[in-house]
Amino acid sequence: MIATAEVSTRTGRAKATLDPAELDLIDRYWRAANYLSVGQIYLMDNPLLAEPLLPEHVKPRLLGHWGTTPGLNLLYAHMNRAIRNRDLNALYITGPGHGGPGLVANAYLEGTYTEVYPAIGQDAEGIRRLFRQFSFPGGIPSHVAPETPGSIHEGGELGYSIVHAYGAAFDNPDLVVLCVVGDGEAETGPLAASWHSNKFLNPATDGAVLPVLHLNGYKIANPTVLARIPESELADLLRGYGYEPLFVTGSDPALVHEQLATTLDAALDDIADIQRRARSGDGAGDGSRPRWPMLVLRTPKGWTGPATVDGLPVEGTFRSHQVPLAETRTNAQHRSQLEEWLRSYRPEELFDEGGALRPELQALAPQGGRRMSANLHANGGLLLRDLVMPDFRDYAVTLERPGTQMSEATRVMGEFVRDIITANPDNFRVMGPDETASNRLGAVFEVTSRTWNAETVAGDDHLAPDGRVMEVLSEHLCEGWLEGYLLTGRHGLFNCYEAFIHLVDSMFNQHAKWLKTTRHIPWRAPIASLNYLLTSHVWRQDHNGLSHQDPGFIDHVVNKKSEVVRVYLPPDTNTLLSVADHCLRSRHYVNVIVAGKQPALAYLTMDEAIAHCTRGLGIWPWAGNTDAEPDVVLACAGDVPTLEVVAAADLLRRHLPDLKVRVINVVDLMRLEPDTEHPHGLSDRDFDALFTRDKPVVFAYHGYPSLIHRLTYRRNNHHNIHVRGYREEGTTTTPFDMVMMNDLDRFRLVMDVIDRVPSLGSRAANLRQDMSDRRLAARAYTREHGEDDPSIADWRWTGV
Amino acid sequence: MIATAEVSTRTGRAKATLDPAELDLIDRYWRAANYLSVGQIYLMDNPLLAEPLLPEHVKPRLLGHWGTTPGLNLLYAHMNRAIRNRDLNALYITGPGHGGPGLVANAYLEGTYTEVYPAIGQDAEGIRRLFRQFSFPGGIPSHVAPETPGSIHEGGELGYSIVHAYGAAFDNPDLVVLCVVGDGEAETGPLAASWHSNKFLNPATDGAVLPVLHLNGYKIANPTVLARIPESELADLLRGYGYEPLFVTGSDPALVHEQLATTLDAALDDIADIQRRARSGDGAGDGSRPRWPMLVLRTPKGWTGPATVDGLPVEGTFRSHQVPLAETRTNAQHRSQLEEWLRSYRPEELFDEGGALRPELQALAPQGGRRMSANLHANGGLLLRDLVMPDFRDYAVTLERPGTQMSEATRVMGEFVRDIITANPDNFRVMGPDETASNRLGAVFEVTSRTWNAETVAGDDHLAPDGRVMEVLSEHLCEGWLEGYLLTGRHGLFNCYEAFIHLVDSMFNQHAKWLKTTRHIPWRAPIASLNYLLTSHVWRQDHNGLSHQDPGFIDHVVNKKSEVVRVYLPPDTNTLLSVADHCLRSRHYVNVIVAGKQPALAYLTMDEAIAHCTRGLGIWPWAGNTDAEPDVVLACAGDVPTLEVVAAADLLRRHLPDLKVRVINVVDLMRLEPDTEHPHGLSDRDFDALFTRDKPVVFAYHGYPSLIHRLTYRRNNHHNIHVRGYREEGTTTTPFDMVMMNDLDRFRLVMDVIDRVPSLGSRAANLRQDMSDRRLAARAYTREHGEDDPSIADWRWTGV
Repeated sequence: MIATAEVSTRTGRAKATLDPAELDLIDRYWRAANYLSVGQIYLMDNPLLAEPLLPEHVKPRLLGHWGTTPGLNLLYAHMNRAIRNRDLNALYITGPGHGGPGLVANAYLEGTYTEVYPAIGQDAEGIRRLFRQFSFPGGIPSHVAPETPGSIHEGGELGYSIVHAYGAAFDNPDLVVLCVVGDGEAETGPLAASWHSNKFLNPATDGAVLPVLHLNGYKIANPTVLARIPESELADLLRGYGYEPLFVTGSDPALVHEQLATTLDAALDDIADIQRRARSGDGAGDGSRPRWPMLVLRTPKGWTGPATVDGLPVEGTFRSHQVPLAETRTNAQHRSQLEEWLRSYRPEELFDEGGALRPELQALAPQGGRRMSANLHANGGLLLRDLVMPDFRDYAVTLERPGTQMSEATRVMGEFVRDIITANPDNFRVMGPDETASNRLGAVFEVTSRTWNAETVAGDDHLAPDGRVMEVLSEHLCEGWLEGYLLTGRHGLFNCYEAFIHLVDSMFNQHAKWLKTTRHIPWRAPIASLNYLLTSHVWRQDHNGLSHQDPGFIDHVVNKKSEVVRVYLPPDTNTLLSVADHCLRSRHYVNVIVAGKQPALAYLTMDEAIAHCTRGLGIWPWAGNTDAEPDVVLACAGDVPTLEVVAAADLLRRHLPDLKVRVINVVDLMRLEPDTEHPHGLSDRDFDALFTRDKPVVFAYHGYPSLIHRLTYRRNNHHNIHVRGYREEGTTTTPFDMVMMNDLDRFRLVMDVIDRVPSLGSRAANLRQDMSDRRLAARAYTREHGEDDPSIADWRWTGV
Repeated sequence: MIATAEVSTRTGRAKATLDPAELDLIDRYWRAANYLSVGQIYLMDNPLLAEPLLPEHVKPRLLGHWGTTPGLNLLYAHMNRAIRNRDLNALYITGPGHGGPGLVANAYLEGTYTEVYPAIGQDAEGIRRLFRQFSFPGGIPSHVAPETPGSIHEGGELGYSIVHAYGAAFDNPDLVVLCVVGDGEAETGPLAASWHSNKFLNPATDGAVLPVLHLNGYKIANPTVLARIPESELADLLRGYGYEPLFVTGSDPALVHEQLATTLDAALDDIADIQRRARSGDGAGDGSRPRWPMLVLRTPKGWTGPATVDGLPVEGTFRSHQVPLAETRTNAQHRSQLEEWLRSYRPEELFDEGGALRPELQALAPQGGRRMSANLHANGGLLLRDLVMPDFRDYAVTLERPGTQMSEATRVMGEFVRDIITANPDNFRVMGPDETASNRLGAVFEVTSRTWNAETVAGDDHLAPDGRVMEVLSEHLCEGWLEGYLLTGRHGLFNCYEAFIHLVDSMFNQHAKWLKTTRHIPWRAPIASLNYLLTSHVWRQDHNGLSHQDPGFIDHVVNKKSEVVRVYLPPDTNTLLSVADHCLRSRHYVNVIVAGKQPALAYLTMDEAIAHCTRGLGIWPWAGNTDAEPDVVLACAGDVPTLEVVAAADLLRRHLPDLKVRVINVVDLMRLEPDTEHPHGLSDRDFDALFTRDKPVVFAYHGYPSLIHRLTYRRNNHHNIHVRGYREEGTTTTPFDMVMMNDLDRFRLVMDVIDRVPSLGSRAANLRQDMSDRRLAARAYTREHGEDDPSIADWRWTGV
């Protein structure tokens, strides 16, 4: 209240912001949205209460969330007023996405819903259908789902409203993103950290985010933390986050309307001032971070709903979270209360006899693309421009012979990414949790900086408000910003330590579900893919050890619909370039690329790399020793496993020259699945041609071995596939000791081959013993010297 | 600085806290820890610099993190002083766990290290070994790993220091947990939310957490956000979090020592005052939440290290994050700087000629269990008491015939948990993200409340400072608190919506790695298992739809070492009781229990349930129709799949009475794995006896089908196993529509059987068509009526 008073003073308003007529109109609009929201939760017929409410008018299963909805509708109505008055380009992000009925109601009131779903007309029959479909089999989901026009944020899993809002605002200088944060959501970790996104927003070239912390006081069954600390403490917290909180508190609609209109005007004035200062000659680039305004809206949960039900308080308590009246089919008292509740909105003042919204209320909605439900940014694929791509072949490392020259794959990729940044200055960003340089993408800093709008000091390294690289020590923020950026029609790359990408497992889930669902919504246009570059991977955590070793994100990803997930394991620099080019051009996928950052051998020329990546997997003839049917297949996926397989093939070639060895490298992991399971899958015939129908296959894989079995269990030769991979053994140690700890090393692979080709006889037995001895010697050397035996560490391919 | 001044005034100190002698001693102790830290990172010989530093004295691979270490050592030395002066029972939680050398150094200085690792003696040879083993093959990891005495928090993955600290403090009224939070870590979501843990701490019955935000200003390559906002804004933020921040700032050791000693005294005085007020008659229970003190320590990153290297500033910048001098073997200048750096600590003043810490410094360490490195709470298994367990059989639901009576499994389990809470009032807690009632464990509120120390209002439901149920809308906080509670020797249960447990995938990873590693550390005692009850599962998200549907946590869990993970899918109430009893008594595992909360059929009497759970899986003779070798096996795991399989078996029995059907239910998922892979695994012989060697198996599984293939791919009959499960199809719909969308429904299972037993002939073809028609009819009914056909929804088993 204090802050509100300040606002009034500051803006010098003596008279009311809303005159009585406007207040009445905005209240009616709010009531219309509330009516349509309650109707969706409860009614399957009699939509305008043309007759008394009967049991059969009510849905048999009551599913939905009322509690948050009136607050969402209130903000929508007031934001519409601001959009009209200021010609704002605005998005509405609904943190409490459970309030789906509210956002559907508003899209319907604005006409957008009927435009994209013509069966839901602007009449009584349309309203009946609108009500019936909600949370109904064959209908629409209960949240602010992809099916809801104007949404880029389902809000089913809580915590990401602010990151999505900022992601949408970046590089959209005229966009205002209203972001409603539920006080339940505000308890989550990602949300608590994401307030600091304001240190990464450039007022000159980015849009604005206007957060609204909606304190309705309760979660499912509990009060919320932020509603139960003194208001002064909450104000401290939000100021500490860098915002100027403006409080709007009340439960009398007329008073709240006036207060909210005044405060929203003040906040939008502040935003306009901040942007004007940053963008005009005077004061622009003075480096000071603005204190952005935000709103704290404290209104009752389930406001305007039943005050009490069965003698217990409901409005203003956690009991209004979902469906306040639960037995409206069987309990006449409940049904009567429901009818009373619905009629309290006076639908006859809102809709004409035919069910059309009355014209004076229609006039309150913005027009065309200014409607938040029809804003193009919420259907970002429509705004998507192709990336301007330099030719990735220009960055190729040259090599005369495979397996003899070293390069750092991600370092070279960094040059490619650098030039993509240059060519796409306003619609491509790189995200990373403080690891972009550590991941050796440092070339990007030749042309750009890290986004930074907090304080700087002498000696700072590449910080700037308009940097294209966003680094914060939170994978959640990186992921969420990028999701918001992609969903509004831009491109990006998230580079991350492999182990810690698990932090966003659940965010990935939600994004993959969004992509899966939107593929089947005709009016949604495809967006750019979510591209992960996972590096500093399990095999090279020399500094960090076991806590930093986990290759399981791939397993997590492949649980999602095959139509949206892709996994690539480029074995060297040129294949990484080819894969990266492919992924950055792709649409509507999640692409996971796992690649090393350490100096490693290059195997393929660029032409070979392109051919190999196009096929996704293939025989490396130079590494094997036969064009004919082999005695054994050595397969590999991932850079370190490839090194060990090639070195094992070298040992076999020297010591068992008669053994016919075929080496297969897999770049596109989904090729291993049957073509009936994944669009990239190989046919059984092609798989058999590569992996044979009956010969032993020793497969060295980057991650947990079970995944290879999972992908290949239907294959004819599956019982012959023996997989080595990470088996959760690791510590702070040398690279070769790591592969030895997990039985992925070249000597062990040779032993595996010998164990699976019994016809090799006694000569092999001697070799097996020799391999075993060399393992022991390698370990002894390492423990003595603290580094790997140079004969292993400096090994090069000498064949061809 | 302001706050520090206030402190001085408030405590009325006119003279210095440290007299010159004490200041000198504490500085020497700090230098000793710093010396030992640098030595660990760099040296493999010449530990006391008895001779000039030669290349061969330096490790060939320099791995470790210097930047954070001097600050950690400083706090350790000062905390030791406080422990001695106040006889504190204290733990040290190291958020920046990368500073492992510091904590190892302190454990060594206190003698604990030598006690648990006698080969590392208190002499020059011991120091040589201490140095050499660090980050060395066959040695110890670089972080504050399980191998480090005094640690319950590795700090490899950042974000969990505060939640672990609070978890340790709960129900340990005399414990003080010093918790160092790195300013990098402070950017993470979990950490940002976890400051609010103070609303869940009861000053009367819990211990205290003293957070120290260590602002050394930099992450790997970037400044940190909290170091680059005005100090007043930071103070607002921390006050908003409910703390009173006390600032200590400086780079002159003598000044910082004095300031830190004064401020730490003030903070510990405040803590003592708060506890005294809460625990004495006067003022206790007045319900007001205290404002706990915390420290903000602003000192240079890499403090006391090289100021510049190769012309670039290092001390006080991000360049000191890891190894400031990188080429000490090959670059004489670097080596000379290293020697100078080491000698700057004047080792001759710290250790005697033999390498023993000088007696006056030894005297600075606390004694015995007061040493933070030897505090029993950091080896919680030593303090662990068995839970007092009521007899779970007393809660059994009775049933005369299988599949005819309904019960809500978690509701009954709630009664069991209620009585566990009563019987274990000070060492058992239930955690949940605001879902304990929603998950139908509500019986617990008959005997306890939700932990809550923030404001309350009339009408609040079961909130109390000493409640045993901890609810906050953050899975991260629930998981972290519980981990801290378990690691310090207590018990607990985490109940969670199944889909959102993925939020803690990465936390689970770290805990499972901790358990795996500590199994092989002899001085670490086993702790209670981490028990997850996942409910509100994928098949029953009627309110919420696709965003709330994800059964993949199981897949994630089984990637970890089989010696620490267990997964249970009890099909009904009595089996859930039996499984819960087993899990709560177990040690050092992660147990995942997935169970429904909705009314569902009961199949087994308690005696049958115990026998079934003891075996882990088994034939349900009443559901099948043969004791002989079957024609087909119907297998199931999970409550909803079990219902569909039993109903399918019923259809087969009626319509194809000659078909010999065996029904197998799996409770303990790990039984499917070979006994060579998991301790619970079945032998191939036993597996074959159940699943046959050659008959078709139709397996209805709760989660993603691939997991069953993954667990069984080595089995003889694997090629005959056909799995139905969740395939990422879902929305807000009815229960039966959900199983139909994923082809897991009874009719589809009958069709699957027919498709796999071709000998059934034309009669089966008619039945197949009938099943297909019934699916269409079921869908049509649901879309018409909005609920499931009662003949399906109310189906009961009629056999036996």
